[in-house]
Amino acid sequence: MHALPSLSLWNRWWQTVCAKMPFSDWLLVGTLLALGGSWNVIRADGGSERNCSAIPPYLPSTVVNTTLRLQALREAMSSFNVSAYIIPGTDAHLSEYIAPRDARMAFMTGFTGSAGTAVVTLKKAVLWTDSRYWVQAERQMDCNWELERDVSISSITDWLIREVSDTGNIGFDPFLFSIQTYESYSYYLVPAKLMLKSIPDNLVDRVWTDRPLIPPDNLIRLPDRVVERTWQMKVEHIRTQMTDNPYKPTAVLLSALDETAWLFNLRGNDVPYNPFFYSYTLLTLNEIWLFVHKDRVTEDLKLYLNSTCFLAHCVQLLEYEQVRVMLKNYMTTPGVKVWIGTEYTNYALYELITPEEKLLTSAYSPVLTTKAVKDETEQRILRDAHVRDAVAVIQLLMWLEKVVPEGKETEMTAAYYVNERRSKQKDSRGPSFETISASGPNAALAHYSPSNATSRKLTVDEMYLVDSGGQYLDGTTDITRTVHWGTPTDMQKEAFTRVLMGNIEISRTIFPSGTKGVNMEMLGRRALWEVGLNYGHGTGHGVGNYFGVHEWPVGFQSNNIPFREGMFTSIEPGYYKENDFGIRIEDVVVIVPAHTKYGHKYLTFKTVSLVPYDRKLIDTSLMSPQQVRNTCYSGWIITT
Amino acid sequence: MHALPSLSLWNRWWQTVCAKMPFSDWLLVGTLLALGGSWNVIRADGGSERNCSAIPPYLPSTVVNTTLRLQALREAMSSFNVSAYIIPGTDAHLSEYIAPRDARMAFMTGFTGSAGTAVVTLKKAVLWTDSRYWVQAERQMDCNWELERDVSISSITDWLIREVSDTGNIGFDPFLFSIQTYESYSYYLVPAKLMLKSIPDNLVDRVWTDRPLIPPDNLIRLPDRVVERTWQMKVEHIRTQMTDNPYKPTAVLLSALDETAWLFNLRGNDVPYNPFFYSYTLLTLNEIWLFVHKDRVTEDLKLYLNSTCFLAHCVQLLEYEQVRVMLKNYMTTPGVKVWIGTEYTNYALYELITPEEKLLTSAYSPVLTTKAVKDETEQRILRDAHVRDAVAVIQLLMWLEKVVPEGKETEMTAAYYVNERRSKQKDSRGPSFETISASGPNAALAHYSPSNATSRKLTVDEMYLVDSGGQYLDGTTDITRTVHWGTPTDMQKEAFTRVLMGNIEISRTIFPSGTKGVNMEMLGRRALWEVGLNYGHGTGHGVGNYFGVHEWPVGFQSNNIPFREGMFTSIEPGYYKENDFGIRIEDVVVIVPAHTKYGHKYLTFKTVSLVPYDRKLIDTSLMSPQQVRNTCYSGWIITT
Repeated sequence: MHALPSLSLWNRWWQTVCAKMPFSDWLLVGTLLALGGSWNVIRADGGSERNCSAIPPYLPSTVVNTTLRLQALREAMSSFNVSAYIIPGTDAHLSEYIAPRDARMAFMTGFTGSAGTAVVTLKKAVLWTDSRYWVQAERQMDCNWELERDVSISSITDWLIREVSDTGNIGFDPFLFSIQTYESYSYYLVPAKLMLKSIPDNLVDRVWTDRPLIPPDNLIRLPDRVVERTWQMKVEHIRTQMTDNPYKPTAVLLSALDETAWLFNLRGNDVPYNPFFYSYTLLTLNEIWLFVHKDRVTEDLKLYLNSTCFLAHCVQLLEYEQVRVMLKNYMTTPGVKVWIGTEYTNYALYELITPEEKLLTSAYSPVLTTKAVKDETEQRILRDAHVRDAVAVIQLLMWLEKVVPEGKETEMTAAYYVNERRSKQKDSRGPSFETISASGPNAALAHYSPSNATSRKLTVDEMYLVDSGGQYLDGTTDITRTVHWGTPTDMQKEAFTRVLMGNIEISRTIFPSGTKGVNMEMLGRRALWEVGLNYGHGTGHGVGNYFGVHEWPVGFQSNNIPFREGMFTSIEPGYYKENDFGIRIEDVVVIVPAHTKYGHKYLTFKTVSLVPYDRKLIDTSLMSPQQVRNTCYSGWIITT
Repeated sequence: MHALPSLSLWNRWWQTVCAKMPFSDWLLVGTLLALGGSWNVIRADGGSERNCSAIPPYLPSTVVNTTLRLQALREAMSSFNVSAYIIPGTDAHLSEYIAPRDARMAFMTGFTGSAGTAVVTLKKAVLWTDSRYWVQAERQMDCNWELERDVSISSITDWLIREVSDTGNIGFDPFLFSIQTYESYSYYLVPAKLMLKSIPDNLVDRVWTDRPLIPPDNLIRLPDRVVERTWQMKVEHIRTQMTDNPYKPTAVLLSALDETAWLFNLRGNDVPYNPFFYSYTLLTLNEIWLFVHKDRVTEDLKLYLNSTCFLAHCVQLLEYEQVRVMLKNYMTTPGVKVWIGTEYTNYALYELITPEEKLLTSAYSPVLTTKAVKDETEQRILRDAHVRDAVAVIQLLMWLEKVVPEGKETEMTAAYYVNERRSKQKDSRGPSFETISASGPNAALAHYSPSNATSRKLTVDEMYLVDSGGQYLDGTTDITRTVHWGTPTDMQKEAFTRVLMGNIEISRTIFPSGTKGVNMEMLGRRALWEVGLNYGHGTGHGVGNYFGVHEWPVGFQSNNIPFREGMFTSIEPGYYKENDFGIRIEDVVVIVPAHTKYGHKYLTFKTVSLVPYDRKLIDTSLMSPQQVRNTCYSGWIITT
């Protein structure tokens, strides 16, 4: 149990570190700071790596014995006449976070990292994963498995071409392949005369006897107070886009979990960190088929969905597993043309949409591009959620400033603290991703989250980076702050200031509606480039309304759609000095109209994150007058 | 005949307008200013548009009677059993500028614009071109031809689908289709059951009885003083890339005219503005086949090319027209794999490279990507060429400042003057493109060049834009300046200053090697965006060493390759106010290493264009201290 920071500490911290935000927002944050809570800490030991060359092989206690499950899988492979079987780490919706029952790669290999592909032949078993996970894989896999340290599909296909004889079939579950993944495998394997064999009945599931069940949780509908557009309005909006499309699609197929959830204003609890539920939707001009686990749809929801009729505004409920059969059947209707977003449609459905003239593709479905622009209610409540979220993060930073000098806190206790603070906020629905709480050199590791094995003690001698976010019924948040409780070096101050300059340069930019993020993201790097520094990750991503914390296709990546008024994105430049420290300054912004002297339809960003930056790390002498001035315009005061 | 401007005028202009450049460069320009020359002026009347609805139809004297040639073409079409025939405006090398003998679209239609596609069916004849050329098309085409005001391929295919019956064949010359063009036509026509029929023997050529001949000019080799890498060194460099390539190509096929010219350090005179000659090259690891009009290869050149043997450093000369036969024959050799750049290979050659495993594609051939980085000699001589070129442009600007108030000069006389001045410079080989000399509202038209019909008188009341360039034996130049001889408006000054700020912001940027131009080109627009202004064209393109003035794939477009040290590109932001004025400030820059505080492999731009900006149009109060300072760093002084 920790007491709340006193108001006098708050005042001191506010003044000395940095002050910002319009007064009304501060008032709200101040009021909300009256909340408190309790939290617990778990500590444990680290692990060691396997040694398959030793006699006998050394296996740490963290490995999983995969002998029997591999044997069972190989029997299944033989019965399907495949020489190799590919096991991706994703689910049928190409989700960023997968449910435990979809962790097939982890079940087969023992390796629980978030990225990788496993391949099993009748004699060998190999995991491909990237450098973040090599140590973890060596700690979790037994000696049935080899580790390949390359993650390109060509590395996997090169291996397959070497290992599998000319006439062999390569089996795969088409539900777990994106269209692009299938095409990449095909590109390399076909010239080598290896056949890809689509097996929609997953072979791992056949041998996974204790596979976790579908969670029993019922679907929930969003309360009216967070909804501006009813599902009927959304359905009509998508249908209008269908009739307006020159290629005259007769149906839209929705595969990504947030597409169906958005369309019907529904949420679920099937996936960690994301309020999604297993689903597909096939929407035509006069019918709607929703594929879900029907036993989780309450009578109230059936009424809400108008599910007992077959008209244009009736949602016909079909079992989740029926989607392939139903789509196959729909394709036999003369004159149909199905519109899909190629980025999120799995190959199992794509391969059914034949012949080619029955297919209409865009990178993203009309639901994803429509959803990218928030309506007025979504904008208002997402900003509201950021006010409450700021309270939790400020509570963390104030608490840390007080307790770190006492020498008892760690990355993990800090992560628990902020999660706990968030859970006390109104409409909290848990963290939106695993908190990155990283001190000193740990902050320089990409995608680091503290574990018992790695958690560092927090001290006044190291910089500290915390990247965290919350799910709230009204919005999803994501914010990163970097602080120093002692005396930063000149290099740390310079790097922090240049990262901040990058953040400011993007957020103050005025640009024509329709500009792509990728064409302005260098503004986040430019101040770093000037002195030969840079960072190795993207500069920002969309965020949702009680949805994914990475809500594509909004953001600064090359495959993101152009910016429009009403979109939200993070801006998050950084700098990482290996074995030393890491800096990231991440805010969420909303895209708003800019009033210019001569033009119309110009936009700019307005920051909705409300947590101060560490004044101690800012060297204003490096900043342009415009940068200092602009931070004031947008409600920030940097006292020089 | 006009006298040279006096040195006192030069001094005054230099001081009052703007001063720039290192002293040594000024000295050189000053010395070269001692040159003079003569020039002539042609004036003529404008034209009027056809009226095919009038009875009888009204046809201006500028139209071409196409009745007989259409009749002949339709006879040829019938003998090949095609219902429609597509006539693109390009040549077999997908060149930017085409030779008169390749102007098949112009011959058939009468329309001489640089962009368009003609389609002839047995009953109709239609030209598609964009808005720049609608008036010109109405002045040049007779009433056999309809004009379609849309240039998308889908507009052409929609028309074909309406006009051609289900079983019809659509004929085309595969030499005049890029791979992309073929795929676009195919994408739309195949679902409509229309067959594309490749006819390598061009049907227009069959009926074009007075088609211009191949120019008699012999090929020339570059003098040693402008060459660092011999053709043998270049051949070995490309072969190294072949052997290093994991897909193990056995040959590289070169289709673009500058590819072969670069490889052998040869130039020709077949195409306007570009020193190219008709050619292809098929380069294998141990043989070289050069396809040219052999009668234009002198004995000296045969010796230079070592053309009497068949070894790795012997160039075997084959007739230009033999390329298809030779490639077809090569493809029958077991184990071959041909590497092509898809952007510049025509469909006639592409369709021969089968089956698919014998093909290796990249967007650009290894020759184009290698050529993009200039060697030290090329860098030095290209900068030298810009010194001499600056003399000609400064002569123009000084002369105009003196004579415009007298009220006798026009856009056309100014264009003749600068072309004439350039022709007096050492190693001059003529203009590198048609000079854009545009006053007042004409400068707001995209791709405007003055004609007798449009040429405006130059006055002190209008802004003037001149975009021109020269070919020199050592380099190709391209520069745009915008000036005002009277009193500019506040808006003109603001727009000019913001265009200049864009130019400076790009050129002063420090960036990691490998950054793409498209990801920084918004810096050229940002100062304009701030006040709601913008421009509708690209921000820059590569330039060559006595080559094309648009030397792709270097530049700021999305399909351009990443920037590396030793590349040259133009930087040319602008602003255009319809019916009023146009501004563009274009400089050529070379990419050089930047020395940064912490990093390595950072680059920046160094401006090699040496013509001052019009000081009268610069409002330094809008510029940041860095922008003013940076112009001094790079050798420029803006007096405030």
